[in-house]
Amino acid sequence: MINSFLMIGQSNMAGRGYLEDVKQIYDEQIKMLVNGRWQTMTEPINFDRSTAGIGLAASFAGCWRLNNENEQIGLIPCADGGSSLDDWKVGGALFENAVFQAKAAKQISTLSGILWHQGENDSFAGRSAEYYDKLDVIVDAFRHELNVPEVPFITGGLGDFLSSGRYGNYFTEFKEVNQALQKFAKTRANCYFVTATGLAANGDGLHFNAVSQRKFGIRYFEAFNKKQTVIMPPDNENELVTIIQDRPLTPTEKIAQLEISFARGKLSLDDLERELILINTSLKS
Amino acid sequence: MINSFLMIGQSNMAGRGYLEDVKQIYDEQIKMLVNGRWQTMTEPINFDRSTAGIGLAASFAGCWRLNNENEQIGLIPCADGGSSLDDWKVGGALFENAVFQAKAAKQISTLSGILWHQGENDSFAGRSAEYYDKLDVIVDAFRHELNVPEVPFITGGLGDFLSSGRYGNYFTEFKEVNQALQKFAKTRANCYFVTATGLAANGDGLHFNAVSQRKFGIRYFEAFNKKQTVIMPPDNENELVTIIQDRPLTPTEKIAQLEISFARGKLSLDDLERELILINTSLKS
Repeated sequence: MINSFLMIGQSNMAGRGYLEDVKQIYDEQIKMLVNGRWQTMTEPINFDRSTAGIGLAASFAGCWRLNNENEQIGLIPCADGGSSLDDWKVGGALFENAVFQAKAAKQISTLSGILWHQGENDSFAGRSAEYYDKLDVIVDAFRHELNVPEVPFITGGLGDFLSSGRYGNYFTEFKEVNQALQKFAKTRANCYFVTATGLAANGDGLHFNAVSQRKFGIRYFEAFNKKQTVIMPPDNENELVTIIQDRPLTPTEKIAQLEISFARGKLSLDDLERELILINTSLKS
Repeated sequence: MINSFLMIGQSNMAGRGYLEDVKQIYDEQIKMLVNGRWQTMTEPINFDRSTAGIGLAASFAGCWRLNNENEQIGLIPCADGGSSLDDWKVGGALFENAVFQAKAAKQISTLSGILWHQGENDSFAGRSAEYYDKLDVIVDAFRHELNVPEVPFITGGLGDFLSSGRYGNYFTEFKEVNQALQKFAKTRANCYFVTATGLAANGDGLHFNAVSQRKFGIRYFEAFNKKQTVIMPPDNENELVTIIQDRPLTPTEKIAQLEISFARGKLSLDDLERELILINTSLKS
C-alpha cells in the first residue's frame, strides 16, 4: 500500500526552485497523483503556475524512501500560489479540491501526513493576528473531512529573507506568522514545525531556491519521522540530499527517462534505440 | 460569465507539441482551471506528464476569442496520457476527476462544450469494434452528471501518421477508430467530428506537433461554431493561427509576462524594473 501525503499551502509548497539548479529525483517508488491516479513522480510536482519548479516534497519523499526501502510513497499536489488562509477557508475552492484529491488518493493509499507551507499572503495588514485561529479551523476540517483525526500535520517557517528583496516591504508580519505556526505546532496534537533558518531565496527574495527546497524537504521528513518540531537543521541534511539525488537509477527507470527525452524531442530515435540496446544487453549479461 | 470547455481524452488532448516550436498564446480573457479556480491560461495547460506541451485547446480558445471579443473563455484540463476508453469508464478515477473539475468550473462559468481527443489506446487487439458503444456510455454519463444534456461534444480524428514511426505497429485499428468517431458524430445529437488530415507528428510518430495542434484547435472551433462536422480543413486556418499568435499584448499582459520571466530567473530585477517603467510611461503618455 502506498503511503500518501497531501501537499497544501501557497507557492513555496508548490515549489518555485529552478529545475536546472539541482539534480532531479526520479524513483519509480515515488508517485504523484495526476487526474486521480498515481504516476511516477517528476518535477515540477505541483504545477499550479507556469513558474512551478522544485519544491520540498521531492526530497521529503526521497528521504522517506531511504527509511522505507521496500515501500512506495505518493504525493498529492494541491498547493496554490499566492493563496491566503481565507482562500483556504473550509468549503472554498482550494479546500474542496484538496479534499477531493485526498479522498481519491485514499482509495488507493494510506493518507500518512499533511505537508503545509503558507503564510506570506497573511503577513501584512494585521492578518497575522488571526493566523492561529484560522489555521486551526482549516486543519480540523481537513482531518475531519478525510477521517484522519490524528494525521501528522507538518508546517515550515517562512524564509528569513522575506523582509528584503523586491517584495520585502509587503511582508511586515512574517515573524508573527512564524510565531503563530510555532505556537500551532506546540499546542496542537501531531503538529510539527520545521525551521527555515539558513535557507535562501531566488532572485525575487520571495521563493526558496531549489537547493534550499531540497534541504527543507529533509527537515520536513525529520519532523515527520521523529514526530517532533525541528528547530535545528539536521547536521547531515546536505549529505542526505546528495545521497537522494545520486541514487543510481534502475534499468526500468533509465528506460523511462530515455522515453521521456525522446518524447520531448531531446533524443533522436537512433540514439534512443542505441541506448535501449545497451541497457538490455547489460541486463542480460 | 465565463464560457468553459472540458478537455478530456488522452495525450493528444493534453498536448505534446514542443513549446519552442510555436509562438505562445497569452490573453487575459483566456482562463484555465487550476485547483478549482480560474488562472490566466499559460501553456502547457494540461500538465498530465512531464512531457506535456502544446495542445489544441489554446488555439481553440484563441479562435473563440476572435469571435467573442468581449467575453471570457475557460479551459478545464482533465486529459490523461495513454488512457483508454476503459480508463475513462463511468465511475473510474479519470471520469470522477473530470466530473469534479467540471462541476467546480460550473459554479463559476457556463459549461459550453466538451473537447475530446482519444483513441490511440483503443486502436489494437480488437478494441476498435467496441469503440462506439463504450464512448456512447461515457458521453451520456458526462452530459447527465453535469446536467448539460445537449452540450456540444467535439472529437477529432487520429493522425494519419500513426501507422508509421516507432510505435506504428501498435495502432493496427486506428482507421476503424476514426470511423467509429465519425459515426458517433453523425448519429448522436450535438456531436461533431474534426478531421486530422494533413496534420503532422513529432519525431515519435505518435503525437501531433505544435504547429499541427494550433491548426487542430482552429478546426475544433470551426466545428463548435458552425455546429457541424469538419471534413475539409478551413482554407484560412494558417492565417487564423497567425492572427491569434500575433495578437498584441495589453499593458497588463506585458507586465504579467515580465513578472513570470522574473520569477523564473530569466530576467534580472534591474531589467524588470526598467521594463515596467517603460510600460507605465507609455500608459501615461
